[in-house]
Amino acid sequence: MSNVTLLGLLEAEPGAFVSGEEISKKLNVSRTAIWKQVRKLEAEGYVIEATPRLGYRLKDKPSRLTIQELLPKLNTNSFGRNIRVHAVVGSTQDELRALAEQGAPEGTLVIAEQQTSGRGRMGRAWVSPAGKGVWMSLLLRPIVPLPLTPQLTLLAAVALSRAITRVVPLEIGIKWPNDLLVNGRKISGILLESAAEDERLRYVIVGLGISVNLDAEDYPEELLQKAVSLKMAAGHAISRSDLIAAVLEQFEQLYALYQEQGFAPIRALWEAHSVTLNRPVTLYTPQGVIEGVPRGLDDMGGLQVELSDGNIRTVYSAEVGAGG
Amino acid sequence: MSNVTLLGLLEAEPGAFVSGEEISKKLNVSRTAIWKQVRKLEAEGYVIEATPRLGYRLKDKPSRLTIQELLPKLNTNSFGRNIRVHAVVGSTQDELRALAEQGAPEGTLVIAEQQTSGRGRMGRAWVSPAGKGVWMSLLLRPIVPLPLTPQLTLLAAVALSRAITRVVPLEIGIKWPNDLLVNGRKISGILLESAAEDERLRYVIVGLGISVNLDAEDYPEELLQKAVSLKMAAGHAISRSDLIAAVLEQFEQLYALYQEQGFAPIRALWEAHSVTLNRPVTLYTPQGVIEGVPRGLDDMGGLQVELSDGNIRTVYSAEVGAGG
Repeated sequence: MSNVTLLGLLEAEPGAFVSGEEISKKLNVSRTAIWKQVRKLEAEGYVIEATPRLGYRLKDKPSRLTIQELLPKLNTNSFGRNIRVHAVVGSTQDELRALAEQGAPEGTLVIAEQQTSGRGRMGRAWVSPAGKGVWMSLLLRPIVPLPLTPQLTLLAAVALSRAITRVVPLEIGIKWPNDLLVNGRKISGILLESAAEDERLRYVIVGLGISVNLDAEDYPEELLQKAVSLKMAAGHAISRSDLIAAVLEQFEQLYALYQEQGFAPIRALWEAHSVTLNRPVTLYTPQGVIEGVPRGLDDMGGLQVELSDGNIRTVYSAEVGAGG
Repeated sequence: MSNVTLLGLLEAEPGAFVSGEEISKKLNVSRTAIWKQVRKLEAEGYVIEATPRLGYRLKDKPSRLTIQELLPKLNTNSFGRNIRVHAVVGSTQDELRALAEQGAPEGTLVIAEQQTSGRGRMGRAWVSPAGKGVWMSLLLRPIVPLPLTPQLTLLAAVALSRAITRVVPLEIGIKWPNDLLVNGRKISGILLESAAEDERLRYVIVGLGISVNLDAEDYPEELLQKAVSLKMAAGHAISRSDLIAAVLEQFEQLYALYQEQGFAPIRALWEAHSVTLNRPVTLYTPQGVIEGVPRGLDDMGGLQVELSDGNIRTVYSAEVGAGG
């Protein structure tokens, strides 16, 4: 049974039910095989209603992002002005890195409906089903020395947080360095990949993954305690193109502010939205485990952690766990 | 006239002169054409003596580095244990980066006899004729946070300086951050390219270019005031494989020390060899020009510059010029 054929049967009768018996007959497959195909289509963003006596009905198709839909909403100078939208890519990061090496300008954006090998921090896989999220990568060519790269990580978190609250009124907390949480559950992932030559940053690729219109069924069960989509949190679907336009606008504005005034205003915004400060945490660093209470950011963007002896230790790279 | 044919004529009579007339006849080309071919062979590392009445004589062939020659001299655990030697590559950096992305282990080394697009800092071209220098790239996978990368830049300078003085007794000064100078003239170039994911360094590629046996004729005239080879400085040729073995040994030792004890011992060694400290300099940074007196390194590896008002400013990325 080919995928196209089941979809073809459902699309042939828009809004109406097609019985399992009919599908089974026409495609010459078992009811179990139909069910598997339905799950596969759902994973691609199709919404299929299944009712025991009536059969299957196509309720919604995956929404496709288009440049035509996005451009009129953009309120930026350079961010998103050079843009590529893909139905499927391995990873938007790899795609954009290739463009960056070829000299693509700052603000270049790669968006994908679906990633087959989307990556999160530490090479972890990232749930990115078609049509339900925003998976994109933005190219920066910042004129800042390499050691200040952590500041961009924090800037990205602030920009994304501000953009989301522009589109849907949710209270968002930033978990150090750049996880965005709604009621303690993660709604987005940010991954910065940077390439440097000595102390000069050649470029930074900001990967942004936002769980927009995912439903509970889209998550592996073990993730549901830790992750949530904007739709699940807000109770209604969100326009992805509105959200992308908001992200680009907020990002461009904050980035301009950063280049003009330095890290101080970004630091203040980050600290104001953080849920990591002033609570005991355990930090798993490559050099070992640190327990303490994060008190703020330093000038470079490092996390200043107060240890039990009152000393301050600055941490740049760690996984944060709840304190003991 | 093919290159091989002139070389063939000279190689057929080792140590003896072949007259220009004979060559001209046998190859059916003009004396000017012969002269051009001779220059081309010299650029490839052949040493050809030209005497008005006697003609041409092949004095020396470019020495070829081989893994067989190098391995017995290595006194390291991992540095240089996975090694590739190329006659010609575009750039050893690009070659090693591809290997790094494929998962090559720490210590992997790429050496080239000749680079067709060797790069120095800021994308500048780098004079790298065949057989006369050491052009190589070493792969590091350091478990240090991204902001500490400048420390590796400084470590590389110390390692290279110590290695050279092991092989040839020259007084070497380190100009911040990592130029090595003999009597104020540059003998080597170091270029670190790093790839990071958030604050985690994925890998660092250390490009090392050492002008070993170059002669004055190998340099463009405008460079001769600023650059010098080890051979020119020492008055005799240096074994490249001895030098490579020394670099790998010193680098591995210092890198182990760094991972064990942190930056403090590297910092002390760097400061002891520096020619940049306590003299007025002009620093051309991406953010503007700074004038002041460098007083030392800070904990991160930044250069601490005392300004005219007595304040200290930390600089991570700049070109250094003499002070006014």
